[in-house]
Amino acid sequence: MADSWLPSLRTATAQEGFELATKLARVGVKLTQPSAEVRDRVRAAYEQDAAQLIASSQVIAIHFQTVAAANNYWRD
Amino acid sequence: MADSWLPSLRTATAQEGFELATKLARVGVKLTQPSAEVRDRVRAAYEQDAAQLIASSQVIAIHFQTVAAANNYWRD
Amino acid sequence: MADSWLPSLRTATAQEGFELATKLARVGVKLTQPSAEVRDRVRAAYEQDAAQLIASSQVIAIHFQTVAAANNYWRD
Amino acid sequence: MADSWLPSLRTATAQEGFELATKLARVGVKLTQPSAEVRDRVRAAYEQDAAQLIASSQVIAIHFQTVAAANNYWRD
Amino acid sequence: MADSWLPSLRTATAQEGFELATKLARVGVKLTQPSAEVRDRVRAAYEQDAAQLIASSQVIAIHFQTVAAANNYWRD
Amino acid sequence: MADSWLPSLRTATAQEGFELATKLARVGVKLTQPSAEVRDRVRAAYEQDAAQLIASSQVIAIHFQTVAAANNYWRD
Repeated sequence: MADSWLPSLRTATAQEGFELATKLARVGVKLTQPSAEVRDRVRAAYEQDAAQLIASSQVIAIHFQTVAAANNYWRD
Repeated sequence: MADSWLPSLRTATAQEGFELATKLARVGVKLTQPSAEVRDRVRAAYEQDAAQLIASSQVIAIHFQTVAAANNYWRD
Repeated sequence: MADSWLPSLRTATAQEGFELATKLARVGVKLTQPSAEVRDRVRAAYEQDAAQLIASSQVIAIHFQTVAAANNYWRD
Repeated sequence: MADSWLPSLRTATAQEGFELATKLARVGVKLTQPSAEVRDRVRAAYEQDAAQLIASSQVIAIHFQTVAAANNYWRD
Repeated sequence: MADSWLPSLRTATAQEGFELATKLARVGVKLTQPSAEVRDRVRAAYEQDAAQLIASSQVIAIHFQTVAAANNYWRD
Repeated sequence: MADSWLPSLRTATAQEGFELATKLARVGVKLTQPSAEVRDRVRAAYEQDAAQLIASSQVIAIHFQTVAAANNYWRD
């Protein structure tokens, strides 16, 4: 992976925070399976599978908790 | 997706917060599977499947934790 | 659904909070599958299935975290 | 269920808190499947199934987070 | 189980906290399936099964959140 | 395992924190299945399996919550 892919958990808006959470979920997969070729093959299958789509949405939800807390819920 | 779909995590009531959590769960799926056609096909199947309905309810529950905290549990 | 089904996260006791968490878990399913007829059919099956019963108990547990925090753990 | 089964989340020790978390996990199943006969039948099967044992342990873990927070981690 | 198996959530180091989280995950299984013989049989199978190994790691992760919070993240 | 593998939850940056979370997820598997040979065999299979890749990403997400909180979200 690129040397620096997560400079900070701060984002300007909640929506950008959600996008960062989505990125973190993908990086988690990447660190577990470093081969882009294998990931592409696996993704082609799971993106059509309800259970995996919902599971992916769940990982995003967990990361969004972290990012939202890091940004004090964008209340400031 | 529309440019702006998450202006804020603040909602007027707990119930609106729950509805926002439901929306976030759906957006998580959308960002993983951008094709509306594939999502519709997948949804037709999982909406009849207990495991997927409960899993969806779980993702909503995780997002509701975030939204509720962001709103200080609507205590104010 | 009825217009107002979640007026507040406050409950008088921990036990009522647990019951509210159970309700939130059910509403999460309801918002994903609005057809009562389909839900009844699905429920008849999963209520006899260990995996789904435990998964349902987990969703309740997640909501109970939220409700308990909202009530300051009924410490006051 | 008995009218009052959760008078408080406070326990004297961490160990009693863990036991309360175990109880809450069971009550979550009970509220989803009220028939003791069906629960007994289902339990006979899942108690021999690794996936369900681990899933049960996970629900206990989630409730233990709540109970531990409610007791200020028994630090006082 | 021995009368006292969880005197406190405090540990001297983060590493000891992780080991305590591992213990709590096991106790959760033990309280669900009290028979050591059945547990041994089940464990022999799941320890070779990726899904169960990852699920076990997840239960440890949830308990580690609790133990880490109880120890103020070993910051003091 | 080496005597000391988790000296602290503090990391200099969010990215290092994410890498620590990935390590913790792996250690959780290691403590459950101490045989490196079995783990290697199991890993060869699950690294090609979408469900297990997403599940691994989820365990990382849970540990990242802990590590991020321990570092005060690298806000300081």
